[in-house]
Amino acid sequence: MASLRLPQRSPANAASRLPRTLARDVPAYADRPGERIRLSGWVHRRRRLSGLTFLVVRDRTGTAQVVVKDESTIEQVEGLPEETTVEVVGIASPNGQAPGGVEVVDPTLTRLGDPAETPAIELWRPKISAGLPTLLDHAQTTLRHPRRQAHWQLAAASLRGFRDTLDEQGFTEVHSPKLVESATESGANVFTVDYFGRPAYLAQSPQFYKQVLVGVFERVYEVGPVFRAEPHDTVRHLAEFVSLDVELGFIADHHDVIKVLRDVVAAMAHSVEIRAASAVGLLEVDLPRVPAEFPTLHFRDALAITGAPADEPDLSPAHERALGAWAKQEHDSDFVVVEGFPTAHRAFYSHPDPADPRWSRSFDLIFRGVELVSGAQRLHRYDDYVAALQQRGLALEPFAAYLDAFRYGIPPHGGFAIGLERWVGRLVEATNIRQVALFPRDLHRLAP
Amino acid sequence: MASLRLPQRSPANAASRLPRTLARDVPAYADRPGERIRLSGWVHRRRRLSGLTFLVVRDRTGTAQVVVKDESTIEQVEGLPEETTVEVVGIASPNGQAPGGVEVVDPTLTRLGDPAETPAIELWRPKISAGLPTLLDHAQTTLRHPRRQAHWQLAAASLRGFRDTLDEQGFTEVHSPKLVESATESGANVFTVDYFGRPAYLAQSPQFYKQVLVGVFERVYEVGPVFRAEPHDTVRHLAEFVSLDVELGFIADHHDVIKVLRDVVAAMAHSVEIRAASAVGLLEVDLPRVPAEFPTLHFRDALAITGAPADEPDLSPAHERALGAWAKQEHDSDFVVVEGFPTAHRAFYSHPDPADPRWSRSFDLIFRGVELVSGAQRLHRYDDYVAALQQRGLALEPFAAYLDAFRYGIPPHGGFAIGLERWVGRLVEATNIRQVALFPRDLHRLAP
Repeated sequence: MASLRLPQRSPANAASRLPRTLARDVPAYADRPGERIRLSGWVHRRRRLSGLTFLVVRDRTGTAQVVVKDESTIEQVEGLPEETTVEVVGIASPNGQAPGGVEVVDPTLTRLGDPAETPAIELWRPKISAGLPTLLDHAQTTLRHPRRQAHWQLAAASLRGFRDTLDEQGFTEVHSPKLVESATESGANVFTVDYFGRPAYLAQSPQFYKQVLVGVFERVYEVGPVFRAEPHDTVRHLAEFVSLDVELGFIADHHDVIKVLRDVVAAMAHSVEIRAASAVGLLEVDLPRVPAEFPTLHFRDALAITGAPADEPDLSPAHERALGAWAKQEHDSDFVVVEGFPTAHRAFYSHPDPADPRWSRSFDLIFRGVELVSGAQRLHRYDDYVAALQQRGLALEPFAAYLDAFRYGIPPHGGFAIGLERWVGRLVEATNIRQVALFPRDLHRLAP
Repeated sequence: MASLRLPQRSPANAASRLPRTLARDVPAYADRPGERIRLSGWVHRRRRLSGLTFLVVRDRTGTAQVVVKDESTIEQVEGLPEETTVEVVGIASPNGQAPGGVEVVDPTLTRLGDPAETPAIELWRPKISAGLPTLLDHAQTTLRHPRRQAHWQLAAASLRGFRDTLDEQGFTEVHSPKLVESATESGANVFTVDYFGRPAYLAQSPQFYKQVLVGVFERVYEVGPVFRAEPHDTVRHLAEFVSLDVELGFIADHHDVIKVLRDVVAAMAHSVEIRAASAVGLLEVDLPRVPAEFPTLHFRDALAITGAPADEPDLSPAHERALGAWAKQEHDSDFVVVEGFPTAHRAFYSHPDPADPRWSRSFDLIFRGVELVSGAQRLHRYDDYVAALQQRGLALEPFAAYLDAFRYGIPPHGGFAIGLERWVGRLVEATNIRQVALFPRDLHRLAP
């Protein structure tokens, strides 16, 4: 272990008597000029002028400006390339020209690690000019760019809003297994795992588990990874993504599900607004207004609006765009729900409309012209499942463990799933979902 | 679709004018006798007396007693076996002898699905007498037993406390990929996935990602599945479990990590107390008091206390039990931290103690005699990683993408992971972790 270069005494420890000040709190020292403060963070940028070096230090809350005039400290800064971690102890000094109105002067700098190598992109530039492959190949560091950080801050704030609303409405958070015995949704697009010498599969969704758990907790939600072996490269699919799943029992029909969806989406948008305000500002996010009720169209009417033939089985991306435009124009809404998709073209567990079983009690939520959410009332009777599988020519056996639960009283229920990355992608109008995923996975990409 | 037996009109819909009353709110009708209320839930139990049938209805909040005197309704109840879903519209009637002081009389009953078949265990019995294999084989319905529901309610409340505290302390929730290019912790115990024709692995922990993300957000947490191909059947390991991962940067040493851990555990215990009070009552959970600071022992002293030889490389389960007893006796504490495990026997990313690199800045938290948490300050310098891997005879190549991040300024940092099921298991003093997992996965079990 002798080859490890370890400091005899931690520099962070040495200065720990002085509590750390976060970058966002530096402006508050306008009232307390002359106070000694301690910053910790990354060298975000250095600018050498004659007889003066500006050092911008970045931490999780933003950046602070440090002014270096002392000759030997200026020299020290030369050896602190961008992204090196440092501790700065200096004097808070109001200056109308400094960002935030306060800068740090007369600093003592301590390097907290080795000098950083040069990252793949210049993280201090306000705009990112590098292409997507560069950003993704070097995600470990490119995610530090404030704009890329901000994407995920929208995601994290959204998760908080999602859970808070559901907790208030009596839902129980669950975590269902990702290693499963048979494919959940269909045999296609499923990843196979070597499970102690026999095949297992990665869950394509928590669909069956959340339905079964309605039988236990009535109302459940799960935030977790789902896996789709998508054989195509598209700008809106990933092989692994974060799914926000909701399921609730004792509903009258899918409209009860849509009501919860509306509350969830409103809470996510609100949480982003209040908890990720700086990310919203930086990215100039146009936050959606979420109406008290989503405008809702039947599938037949949706087809008619788009001018599609009446026998189309599903909505294409072009149809979704047209419906997004229609909702904006007719209802000044970023959202539109399409309900009543053809039963034969939805998942076998979708509940048909009792009045006309050709149509189902399923729905999609289209957000700014892209499908964000799929949901439905589900079948809840064992015999209906058997009939639905038979009608589709699907074998009962792979679903036996799942179906068994429906022999023991599962109430009328339904639910939906929101793709987290897709939600953020639409918020920032990303052209490719990979722009807003932390470490995307697809046909070609398994690292970093 | 003609073979589907669908009601022409949803019974839930028909009665939807009357809002639903939850079982826990029935006692409040003591002040409003004679009011018509609507319950929805499962037939929990029926008791036929002469000229009278008691029907206990269970919903997500508990049970309510319905008294049936009408002859034809008594007959109807005969056709509603336990676990059938029903809607009850009746009159709230105070009765000192009824549980909660209010029962529902003169009911109209509507069946919401088919009559339920007989579950594997009698869910209405207060105690569970069935063995673990029966409970797990039929988890879809046995989880409905109030005691099994309660286990998970402790888990869900714990998750809420975990996140709330970390959100308050400036942490960012992240979700890292579960499909990875190389094994995270070691080549052993890793599941292999067929990833579009090439091998991928299931992440054994989010370790590398959370460290890299400290470089982005400074403080991160993740709640998600982790996968361990444990080749042995033990009472405290699962092949898939929910890991609560935390990592924070700009620390002085691992004591800063232990401080956050203490706050997290205190918040989890507090959240269980206030958000899962009925589960705590039902299971008679002895909630731990979490001290302001955990009693802490160095590994050497811990070995001495247990009477183990000074050259033991790790703590055995028996040592952990002895230390748990010691903490209880000496400090009246359910918790004890052991720090300074031998560097050579901890993960390669553990930070050695600069004063004596044979010992590491790692720690375990022992809760009631069982290791609940492992944590450490980690290495943060690229060269130290290279040296640590070489010293252990490990190849650099599989870790290349991971290590690369450390070239670009990762601050001094550390973190820990809590196994959710293990935490709940200790809370309820389960003898087997499978008792408290929703759908456990192990060497032999991949369903339900």
